[in-house]
Amino acid sequence: MLNPRPAIRKIPEYHPPLAGRDGLRLDFNENTVGCSPHVIERLRQLGPEDLARYPERAAVEAQVADFLGVAASETLLTNGVDEAIHLLCQTYIEPGDEALIVVPTYSMYRIYMTAAGAQVINVAAGTNFEFPAEDVQEQITQRTRLIAIANPNNPTGTVAAQEQLLQIASSAPNAAVLIDEAYFEFYGQTLLTARHSVPNLFVARTFSKAYGLAGLRAGVLVGDAEQMRAVRLVCSPYNVNAAALACLPTALEDRNYIEQYVGEVRESRARLTHALESNRITHWPSEANFILARVGRTKTDATAFVEQMRHRGILVRDRSSDSGCEGCVRITLGPSQHADRLLTALQQTLDELGIARNPVLGVSHP
Amino acid sequence: MLNPRPAIRKIPEYHPPLAGRDGLRLDFNENTVGCSPHVIERLRQLGPEDLARYPERAAVEAQVADFLGVAASETLLTNGVDEAIHLLCQTYIEPGDEALIVVPTYSMYRIYMTAAGAQVINVAAGTNFEFPAEDVQEQITQRTRLIAIANPNNPTGTVAAQEQLLQIASSAPNAAVLIDEAYFEFYGQTLLTARHSVPNLFVARTFSKAYGLAGLRAGVLVGDAEQMRAVRLVCSPYNVNAAALACLPTALEDRNYIEQYVGEVRESRARLTHALESNRITHWPSEANFILARVGRTKTDATAFVEQMRHRGILVRDRSSDSGCEGCVRITLGPSQHADRLLTALQQTLDELGIARNPVLGVSHP
Repeated sequence: MLNPRPAIRKIPEYHPPLAGRDGLRLDFNENTVGCSPHVIERLRQLGPEDLARYPERAAVEAQVADFLGVAASETLLTNGVDEAIHLLCQTYIEPGDEALIVVPTYSMYRIYMTAAGAQVINVAAGTNFEFPAEDVQEQITQRTRLIAIANPNNPTGTVAAQEQLLQIASSAPNAAVLIDEAYFEFYGQTLLTARHSVPNLFVARTFSKAYGLAGLRAGVLVGDAEQMRAVRLVCSPYNVNAAALACLPTALEDRNYIEQYVGEVRESRARLTHALESNRITHWPSEANFILARVGRTKTDATAFVEQMRHRGILVRDRSSDSGCEGCVRITLGPSQHADRLLTALQQTLDELGIARNPVLGVSHP
Repeated sequence: MLNPRPAIRKIPEYHPPLAGRDGLRLDFNENTVGCSPHVIERLRQLGPEDLARYPERAAVEAQVADFLGVAASETLLTNGVDEAIHLLCQTYIEPGDEALIVVPTYSMYRIYMTAAGAQVINVAAGTNFEFPAEDVQEQITQRTRLIAIANPNNPTGTVAAQEQLLQIASSAPNAAVLIDEAYFEFYGQTLLTARHSVPNLFVARTFSKAYGLAGLRAGVLVGDAEQMRAVRLVCSPYNVNAAALACLPTALEDRNYIEQYVGEVRESRARLTHALESNRITHWPSEANFILARVGRTKTDATAFVEQMRHRGILVRDRSSDSGCEGCVRITLGPSQHADRLLTALQQTLDELGIARNPVLGVSHP
């Protein structure tokens, strides 16, 4: 009888609520209007020859490295950031090693850490999801082999200070420290340059969020060249598909498009913040393209909210199952026309459900 | 100081000679004319919305399962067969376990097995690359956790009998047995149906060869539903990109296109076989879209051959580094217009290098 490894049985199942996503998609932190039109033009130039050939990553990898201001030897394109996480886990974690995450956070860290056989240490964020730098420091041991931190964090939108992250990496020289900057474009601060002072620090970026290319699966992992040599050994030479490789340079070239999109999303973020405050809905200051808000005390409350919003044509994501997030929903922000629709539906939903200015729930934060 | 796991250091580097592939590409067993035109049409219908969304695999997975005559619960779409191999290694292999391959064979088995910490057992194929069924049986132990067999095999083109493979799977109930049918379309025999009698047997298929979609990265892994549930746990929900998901159903629909292409490749295979025989060049009977031929005794001979062919506009692959393949090149077959070019260049090269009818080398086989 064939049995999977014991670690495999411990992996939590992950079923993102993908099916039937009809409406304005504010549930997956995707770009809500899509990529630059030049990217679509480029995609449509692909012919049979491009699809028939095994995709050569190196040239585009060098262009992306250039864009990021790092060396090609420090850069690996991956099949989304998920693959980068997977590769780091496999490169550094032996069964029984420890791996550390700050919860709540992105689900895939735990999944790949567990698959690699790690004992996953959850460090809880503060009451208001403040980054628990001291608690993380205290949990670092000789066996800590991977620390994964999303900055800005998902699903909270909160951030850690650069010095805190560098300090953690310095305190854990035996561990790979991944700073997942999937939402960098909406925040503007990066560890890409400071990284050089700490050779065990890795930075991930993605084309799935601001760039509007989640469908193409393209992430970037940057780290010390010597470490990246090891990570590459585990990686298929053909991990990134030809459509992604064709489109990435074009996506990077159209900087105006990204700048404008990001500017509008930030404006929408301010508008949603204002609306939540006016309605005294607890929420957390976000540096990403979404806001986490507490619309009730239980998962039932959050489900009711999600359903009401869906009836109004807007998809948002119940995050009640995340640590400390009971009754919370995560709302993705798009440009102004999408903020208009969001805010109208939001107000109607809050009124309908009697959430707005509810004396129990309505503790505006911070 | 951050150190990768010890197993990582043991992974052989794999640098396929991709750069500068100018000429008729008979070096990577790709489809040399490309996919059905309907697939390109479908690709060009993709818009910003399709690229912005996280790709939902389930619906297409069900269609592919239907096509293969298996259940969706038995089927997983992967980022090329490479990912299927990676997932199987991670699902079943603990550090110190044994994993078994028949050499020479596809490079990625060893890479992912080593990465998972396996002790890789190489079972040598026969003198003429016959499948060493008995030797494989003898090497199976309680610790054998994965056996990977390409059928037809790459780079030899040779095949194992179905009963041999089923017997091996039955003899190793503690191991996952992967039959990699990447070249199925050129062979016509499959273990997909017989698979049900042996729940530890997995079958992989690909869209990279006959279907001409290597660039899109789409493989399929089929196995017992209960086992596949474990394999899925390690897999990102977004492992297959939106371009691949859009194109696969169209590719499967145009059966005529594949049938005609495969028919022409088989005809070209017969023509190349005849040419090699006429020139008394040792080669092996192939059930795939390529033929392995011994064009000399050393790697230097093979390199000279590859270079001569390149000068004539044709890329073929030196396989001298593979076990038992010194002096051998692997030549991919395309439809007749490509066979014409191949055979002309081949004859010129053989004549130029004095290989043809060389009394030492010229042992036609079998």
